[in-house]
Amino acid sequence: MMTLYYSPNACSRAAHIALEETGAPYERVRVSLKDGEQHRPEFLAVNPKGKVPALKVDGRVVTECPAVLAFIAASFPEAGLSPANDPFAAADMLAFNLYLASTVHVSFAHDRRAARWADDEAAQAAMRAKVPQNLVEQFGTIEERLGDGRTFVHGDSYSVSDPYLFTFTGWLRERGIADETRFPRVFAHYDRVKARPAVQRILEIEDAG
Amino acid sequence: MMTLYYSPNACSRAAHIALEETGAPYERVRVSLKDGEQHRPEFLAVNPKGKVPALKVDGRVVTECPAVLAFIAASFPEAGLSPANDPFAAADMLAFNLYLASTVHVSFAHDRRAARWADDEAAQAAMRAKVPQNLVEQFGTIEERLGDGRTFVHGDSYSVSDPYLFTFTGWLRERGIADETRFPRVFAHYDRVKARPAVQRILEIEDAG
Repeated sequence: MMTLYYSPNACSRAAHIALEETGAPYERVRVSLKDGEQHRPEFLAVNPKGKVPALKVDGRVVTECPAVLAFIAASFPEAGLSPANDPFAAADMLAFNLYLASTVHVSFAHDRRAARWADDEAAQAAMRAKVPQNLVEQFGTIEERLGDGRTFVHGDSYSVSDPYLFTFTGWLRERGIADETRFPRVFAHYDRVKARPAVQRILEIEDAG
Repeated sequence: MMTLYYSPNACSRAAHIALEETGAPYERVRVSLKDGEQHRPEFLAVNPKGKVPALKVDGRVVTECPAVLAFIAASFPEAGLSPANDPFAAADMLAFNLYLASTVHVSFAHDRRAARWADDEAAQAAMRAKVPQNLVEQFGTIEERLGDGRTFVHGDSYSVSDPYLFTFTGWLRERGIADETRFPRVFAHYDRVKARPAVQRILEIEDAG
């Protein structure tokens, strides 16, 4: 049995959607970051790093969003969530997810989690002030990458990169940093992903509080 | 033909070592970050993100260190640089590399590259001041993970995670943040990796300037 530990609208949303897309049975455990539940001993026993997503599979645990996504894609090849039998395409998908994890997500974190990197409040405010500039630059790179007429991140086929980008585009919209007039391809991609039945089900579950 | 774009003692060192370990032929191009060569048009044509490592393979380019490492491991299975045929072990290796990329490397970046996240000089100084605390906490997690009597990051077998950790441990030592009295397993691992002939060859090439 698989158990996904997630927090509503955290980056774990990508794993939550990917798992739902496979059609495989799984259990979910809500670990609300807003309520600090990631610091509870029962969750630290699952992931000592105190981060979501964590995916427990037969007693073993996978952490770090792109690794959880890669595991889901590899475990359910029939779901077609990653390019099969092409090492270059697989590396390209991983590189895209890595960019989201180590650059885009890190930019967002300097908004609400600036205290990770400086104790001083004025310094935290200076970090928050620069977040929109960094994100606009980074989504510019993604807008470019999506190209004209591309349905999903890696072409015509939906992959685990799509719910991952979808999650961050949602954050961009909610925070009012940019909209579809600035990044038309990124936001058209968002709408396409949102329309999928599996995505609708997860949004309903996560938003139910 | 493969071409690796690297900068001496950047995180690209991990990819440089991994490639050397395979025994496959490759070319190398030095892109000195110290001299700002990552901003030159000829390198931006290879990787528009202006980051190393970048690995060009038959005209296509893989970026982001853990993706480059995964590509090298997958392309040369006979080199045994990743666990074969075990999706969980593969995800676990990827998760470790992800932690290095999105947490440990990001901590280091707040030292010399604080300007990425705040324009204000006092804020940058506040970020630099917190770097040792974050790194000590993160290497504590890694020290724990290495466990007693474990030869390499994932057990008895050397993998791409080893030169990656080796690179960051080297940075930790150079910056005087911690030494072997604080993290004996981490530094014993560093010595074991350093003793490998492929690693010696790469250190000589990168340090030759």
